[in-house]
Amino acid sequence: MIKTIEWKNKSVKMIEQTLLPEKYKVITIKTTGEMWQAIKRLAVRGAPAIGIAAAYGVILGIQDSKAKNWIKFKRELDKTTKYLSTSRPTAVNLFWALDRMTFCAESNKDKDISKIIEALKKEADKIFKEDQRICRAIGKNGLKVVRKGACILTHCNAGGLATADYGTALAVMYAADSAGKNISVFADETRPLLQGSRLTAWELMKAKIPVTLICDNTAAQVMKEGKIDLVITGADRIALNGDSANKIGTYSVAVLAKAHNIPFYIAAPKSTFDFTLKNGSEIPIEERKAEEVTCGFGKRTAPKGVPVYSPAFDVTPAKLISGIITEFGIIEKPNMTTIKKHFGL
Amino acid sequence: MIKTIEWKNKSVKMIEQTLLPEKYKVITIKTTGEMWQAIKRLAVRGAPAIGIAAAYGVILGIQDSKAKNWIKFKRELDKTTKYLSTSRPTAVNLFWALDRMTFCAESNKDKDISKIIEALKKEADKIFKEDQRICRAIGKNGLKVVRKGACILTHCNAGGLATADYGTALAVMYAADSAGKNISVFADETRPLLQGSRLTAWELMKAKIPVTLICDNTAAQVMKEGKIDLVITGADRIALNGDSANKIGTYSVAVLAKAHNIPFYIAAPKSTFDFTLKNGSEIPIEERKAEEVTCGFGKRTAPKGVPVYSPAFDVTPAKLISGIITEFGIIEKPNMTTIKKHFGL
Repeated sequence: MIKTIEWKNKSVKMIEQTLLPEKYKVITIKTTGEMWQAIKRLAVRGAPAIGIAAAYGVILGIQDSKAKNWIKFKRELDKTTKYLSTSRPTAVNLFWALDRMTFCAESNKDKDISKIIEALKKEADKIFKEDQRICRAIGKNGLKVVRKGACILTHCNAGGLATADYGTALAVMYAADSAGKNISVFADETRPLLQGSRLTAWELMKAKIPVTLICDNTAAQVMKEGKIDLVITGADRIALNGDSANKIGTYSVAVLAKAHNIPFYIAAPKSTFDFTLKNGSEIPIEERKAEEVTCGFGKRTAPKGVPVYSPAFDVTPAKLISGIITEFGIIEKPNMTTIKKHFGL
Repeated sequence: MIKTIEWKNKSVKMIEQTLLPEKYKVITIKTTGEMWQAIKRLAVRGAPAIGIAAAYGVILGIQDSKAKNWIKFKRELDKTTKYLSTSRPTAVNLFWALDRMTFCAESNKDKDISKIIEALKKEADKIFKEDQRICRAIGKNGLKVVRKGACILTHCNAGGLATADYGTALAVMYAADSAGKNISVFADETRPLLQGSRLTAWELMKAKIPVTLICDNTAAQVMKEGKIDLVITGADRIALNGDSANKIGTYSVAVLAKAHNIPFYIAAPKSTFDFTLKNGSEIPIEERKAEEVTCGFGKRTAPKGVPVYSPAFDVTPAKLISGIITEFGIIEKPNMTTIKKHFGL
């Protein structure tokens, strides 16, 4: 198992994902500021992993607090969570984890500051450990949609590198592989930052699951050739009606899957749902810097000064989603009713 | 006007397109072998430009022929054309130009060898000059589908760099701009070799036509946002029924355009039609090397040894094509009947 992120000696160890696959390097994050940077520049990415990183980022900010009382401590905590919340806007797990940490602190506010810090550390560890169990449950629940010998297309990376364990979308593939289903995978390279070629291909090769890398614009052709049985991707934020934000290009894949009568699944934990949003139009979409497109490989590949439109995410409407695989099962034909029922809301 | 390719002093001068936009360099091609390499590695590319390059490539091969009679000369000519025909398999203009050169030689076979060579040189020049007129005619004919203020999406490069003049798909944009239509363009970057960002964006910026660069996987999102009025691309080979091979990703764009009710046009000269092919399934599709995907920018961006599927082209079925803009007009709803009628076959 890849150790994407872990707590060790009052700091966070994480794989520097921007260097993969050329270089495997574990970095040590010691301050909230370093964590903000790590999230921002995608050293750690993937909705569940961002949630864990944010929770531990809070600990880094307050573990050595000199605050003498709750009011002062709360002020420090709020400053830390508010700061971390500005790192990336789309993945809701970031805000979910920060809210959970704040709620934990408030639940313990009558205790000594040292005890509150202890409780917060336990809460962060709990988020981490829960994610491991959730990955396993998603993998198991997803088995139902994967026939023996299936060929699965995925976009971006929703694997071990995006979580504390073995992923969401990729969890289904790992589980299917373990169950002897002899699956194979096509991985979209996922421009501009190539999480598909750099991370997904790397993970699947390590796990000895047959993977073929394609450019994003080749997915339609592969579908047309009848090579794809189903699509599974992760998500960064899912609205109450099932509209799902995920890495830019996911919407494209969903439209193409529909046109080729290929089932399109999303795999994501409950923490990726944002029940406060009625639909996907309310999901804030991060825009990335032009340089990631124009000189993303250390070499300029576009004219200087060319205007670039580079949203980091797009929203796939629920109607294009065959089902959402969660730790509780599968939401077939996701909409407000089926989603509320699934989570007992 | 960009001088993409021209004959000068018994050799061919051409822009080394692999270096754009970082470096503008004109290279001199002196032998058929150098021309084969130039076509193969995409120093010159785009169906019409490949046709011209092939015709001049023939001249490079035979202009200093020492053959004393037709039989011997024909043997040299056949060797040259056969060799050039192996450079790239998909763009039919290559074979069309080589056939035309052979036909020209055969029509002059009773003359002195020096006169045959003279006739061949004239034929190559004619192919070059015809292409200039064709580009202008395509531009003019395409005006009909471009409303004032239209925003056009294009894929790959079908501009001046793909022809002897100002392109096919881009010809329509240049003509619309000249006609004061205030158009704007979204250019797909076009992985793996980024002809969209390297060439199309460069050309349009030089022409002061507003262009925004996007990753290929962002086209669907831009369409969803209502930003695109129509799509125009070039083609590398069009079957008798209208199925059109073009740069990989074009089929994807066509499916996405259909899903968003956006007209999808192809702009291509008669020489890009292959009337011997009933439909697109018969078009040979070139596969490119994995390295163009895994380390295309001088930096490895995928794990070593990862299998890659990299077709250079895909085929868009005629049913997804609103019309094909040629030098003779527009073939609306292209199929065998409308195409035969258009060309008076």
